[in-house]
Parts: sequence; C-alpha cells; structure tokens
Amino acid sequence: MRIAVLGTGTVGTTLASGFVRTGHEVRLGSRTAGNERSVAWVAETGAGASEGSFADAASWGEVVLNATGGLVSIEALTAAGAENLAGKVLLDVANPLDYSEGFPPRVVQPDGRSLAEQIQSTFPEARVVKTLNTMNTVVMTDPRLLAGPHTVFVAGNDAEAKALAADLLRGFGWGSEEILDVGGISGSRGLELYLALWLTLIGSFGTPAFNVGVVRA
Amino acid sequence: MRIAVLGTGTVGTTLASGFVRTGHEVRLGSRTAGNERSVAWVAETGAGASEGSFADAASWGEVVLNATGGLVSIEALTAAGAENLAGKVLLDVANPLDYSEGFPPRVVQPDGRSLAEQIQSTFPEARVVKTLNTMNTVVMTDPRLLAGPHTVFVAGNDAEAKALAADLLRGFGWGSEEILDVGGISGSRGLELYLALWLTLIGSFGTPAFNVGVVRA
Repeated sequence: MRIAVLGTGTVGTTLASGFVRTGHEVRLGSRTAGNERSVAWVAETGAGASEGSFADAASWGEVVLNATGGLVSIEALTAAGAENLAGKVLLDVANPLDYSEGFPPRVVQPDGRSLAEQIQSTFPEARVVKTLNTMNTVVMTDPRLLAGPHTVFVAGNDAEAKALAADLLRGFGWGSEEILDVGGISGSRGLELYLALWLTLIGSFGTPAFNVGVVRA
Repeated sequence: MRIAVLGTGTVGTTLASGFVRTGHEVRLGSRTAGNERSVAWVAETGAGASEGSFADAASWGEVVLNATGGLVSIEALTAAGAENLAGKVLLDVANPLDYSEGFPPRVVQPDGRSLAEQIQSTFPEARVVKTLNTMNTVVMTDPRLLAGPHTVFVAGNDAEAKALAADLLRGFGWGSEEILDVGGISGSRGLELYLALWLTLIGSFGTPAFNVGVVRA
C-alpha cells in the first residue's frame, strides 16, 4: 500500500521504515517538502521511500498515519488537507503530551476528549483508528522483542478501517490474538491517559522495551 | 495483623474477607458504628471480623486500608483521625471517579495530583501505599483466577511500607515477580488515570475478570 506518514520524529521515521521493510511504499510528510530529516530518511531507506509536504504525502497516500506531536496534530492535519484525508484510513499514533511543566509531561484532554476524538470530529470523513500510542517505537515495529504475548489496542468507529489497521500490525509481527479492539473512537481516552502509567514505568525500568498485555480468566 | 478496612462497599468487604481468610483480624470501618452492611459482614464472616466507626477501626488497626469512594476519601480519613493514621501503613485502593456525567466516569485529579498524593500530603505521618486500584476485587484477592502472570502495582514514598504491602499481596496469592514497585507516591497519577482504560476494557469484555501484565524484553 501507499502509506503517508506525517511527522519526521523518531515515531514517524521508525514506523515509516517498518512499513517499507514490510513491503509498503511510504511518503514521509512534514511541514515543508525537502525537510532535512525527511531527505536523510529517504536517502538511507532507498526504494519505496519518498518525502514531501503534509498535503503532498496525504494526497498521495492510500492510508495516512499521524505521527506528529499530539498538541500540534490538528494543525498538521489541517495543513495536510481535509480533502486529502476524506474516505481514507487515518491511523493516529500521537499522544497529546504537555511538557511545559517538565517531566513527566501531562496528558492533555480538553473537556475530557481524546486527541483521536478531536481528529475524528474535525475531519469527519476520515476513518480514524487510534493505535500503537501505548508503547515505544521499538516495540511497535518489533513486537517479538518482548518475552511473551502483549497487547496493541485499536479504537475507532469504522470496523473496516480497524481491520486494515490490524493487517498492517500483523505485518510488523503482531499476532491476531494480541490486537485488541476496544470499540469506538471514544475508547481513545483511556488509551491516551494510559500514557501517564507508561511514563511512570519507563522511569522505573530505565528502558522503553516493555508493554502491557491484557490477561483474562 | 490487625487491619482496619475503611469502606463497606464491595471493594471493602471483599478485601476484608480476603484478609480474614488469609489469617488476619479485620475491623470494617464506616461512618457510623453498627452500619447495616458492616454488621451483616461481621455475622457472615465470624471469627476475626469486627466493625466500628472509621475512627474506632483506624485506632485499632496496625494497618489501615482506604476503600472509601475516592471523591470522599479525604473526608472519611479525616473522620478516621490523623492521630489514628500516624506512623501506620495506609493502603489506598480507592479511585477518584466522578460519575456525575454518567458512565464511563471521569478520573478526577485536581491540578494533576492523584488522590494518593492528596492523602499523603493531608496526612503526612501516614505511610501511604497506592495499590490494587487497577483491577476488580475478584482479581485483587484471587489473582490466580486469571490465565497467566499479571501485575499489581505499588507506589509510595516509604520502602518498608511497600514491603509490608507486598507481604499482604503475597497472602492473596500474588507472586513476588507480579508485584511491581513503580516508585514514589507520585506514581499514583498513572495508576489512577489507567482506570480510564480499565473502564473501556470492562465495557469491551463485559466482565471484570481481567488485568494487565507488564511484559519486558
């Protein structure tokens, strides 16, 4: 598939590389085409990799992934263009973290609404799926790094979009039984607030190589 | 040990019964001695069980456990008496959930501070340990109900208090490797905010018989 990855930070480039490695074409999108990090990523990745502006990447992509900073995601997606998101699966892996008071940052949910819900209501024609925001990039794209089954959550209002997200996750090595659908996009509230615990755990362990797995009776 | 359990709801009585079953004496504390649910619990539990006011239970107990509603916990502990909490391990299992806008309730943390931190700062001589708030009571007292290893978190500023909490948890059947110390009492922020995800999961599964386990590399 043609996947537009918006955001050139570690999350964006690691996911972009993961998608290329698993057979997809990726265009890395940033505020301006020719962004230094984007160009470097394309050079080191080679075949299957390209870069451009948010709008260029989003219009090219069959699937769009939001890996921009959570507090600027609405702005970045607006730059990408509502018309370039309409009808497409929009994977939201961002976390709305406010670092203004230092570490650990605070999860920001105005009026209790998650970032993913804000994205869905701002871009009603996009088929938003919240996923992968609950772990570090090394775990996202290499789940078998961990010593046992663990869980990746998906939340969204569109079942077909969640099924496509699950296919992409399986491409990274996630087992079907590890992919947990938590219902509609409002389930993103819990997925984003969980970051507070995740940040505590990274402090305890001193490494991001962990995740949680849901264990049932 | 003599354990004062404050709060006569399902969490309080289930934990109280669990402690009696594992060899402790328990006094169930409520707003007023002779509370109907307390009297019923004592009658059905028998030896090792008693009841009284918050203050009576707290002054009697060597360990105090807060299982009152999170939004009224400070008030209940004030009724229990700062002098009856001083120097004692105070296990806080409560969650500050606001149901005023319906289900799912919202986790309330004024100025980003957890309930456990508010308790610790209001009762500085108590040795507060946040634990067990991240799961249903059936899982708290019978962890082997679930089909694999999973995690109970402890947070608090007093290492000795956390060690005592871990002993009590092992009494319920928790394995030492399942008890995860996440550091000081500020770690409670994440433990309480996790409830948003827990509430989503209980909605997905239709049963509270689940928990998460931390999985590492």
